[in-house]
Amino acid sequence: MPERAVQDFYADDLAWCYGCGRLNQEGFQLKTFWDGDETVTRFTPRPYHIAIPGYVYGGLIGSLVDCHGTGSAAAAAYRAEGRQVGEGPAPRYVTASLRVDYLKPTPLGVPLEVRGRIKEMKGRKVVVEARVIADGEVTARGEVVAVQMPEHFAGKTTNREARP
Amino acid sequence: MPERAVQDFYADDLAWCYGCGRLNQEGFQLKTFWDGDETVTRFTPRPYHIAIPGYVYGGLIGSLVDCHGTGSAAAAAYRAEGRQVGEGPAPRYVTASLRVDYLKPTPLGVPLEVRGRIKEMKGRKVVVEARVIADGEVTARGEVVAVQMPEHFAGKTTNREARP
Repeated sequence: MPERAVQDFYADDLAWCYGCGRLNQEGFQLKTFWDGDETVTRFTPRPYHIAIPGYVYGGLIGSLVDCHGTGSAAAAAYRAEGRQVGEGPAPRYVTASLRVDYLKPTPLGVPLEVRGRIKEMKGRKVVVEARVIADGEVTARGEVVAVQMPEHFAGKTTNREARP
Repeated sequence: MPERAVQDFYADDLAWCYGCGRLNQEGFQLKTFWDGDETVTRFTPRPYHIAIPGYVYGGLIGSLVDCHGTGSAAAAAYRAEGRQVGEGPAPRYVTASLRVDYLKPTPLGVPLEVRGRIKEMKGRKVVVEARVIADGEVTARGEVVAVQMPEHFAGKTTNREARP
């Protein structure tokens, strides 16, 4: 069975994220897959996702790390319960903190790969390390502290006005 | 004289950033101003800049902190030289590291303010602390380590293919 993207199993009400919501037509629709013991997301920035000419905008790189972090956390939660991704609903994580170290400029115009490793998993918290790879080189490293979404956040999902 | 935005004085070749480049028609065109000893950037996220319904996408918040950080660093460099923003060309800083702590969900649909303080300035490096404020509440805190752009990055500015 080919690996499935964790974001494809977020509940509809929680699938609007600009970075990784499959229902957000304006967004990036990032997809996080298992690849052995690592997780992977791929994305090719658009020409206007520029920082200085020739290089990718750092805020976009942060966005990739962010959504790959929460997606990896959800994938890890599946695995911790002995489930494959897609066997039952995906747990939804949100970001408590994001850190990105920009090691060198990331070239624009090539596909980027973000690879993640689960550094720590404790209770509702998952810490994910990520590296951003362009043309085979690691250009940035990141760390996301993801926390399973508190129940009271979900109350907002009835706020349809906020939707695109 | 009203304060002027530092991004309005970036050289044309360095004014394409998706976050804060005045020439990037697809981007956010963020503007950083002095406000006393703090710097400020304001931005109202669009409806599709959603995380979970009702709240702003964390990657966008990271982007605001990122560009406000480099803009604040440039503003600080003007001030350190006894210049007003716009008195001569703006120095261009890039991000070495970005950290964002998401303290609470940031409501979507209201203007956001990012306020910065210069924490450290040493050689080519400026450390900027930032807080993101929505409806009078601080919803996120960030820190940017900004470094004045190395000369060799500028070689890429002749790469017109990379432009939007």
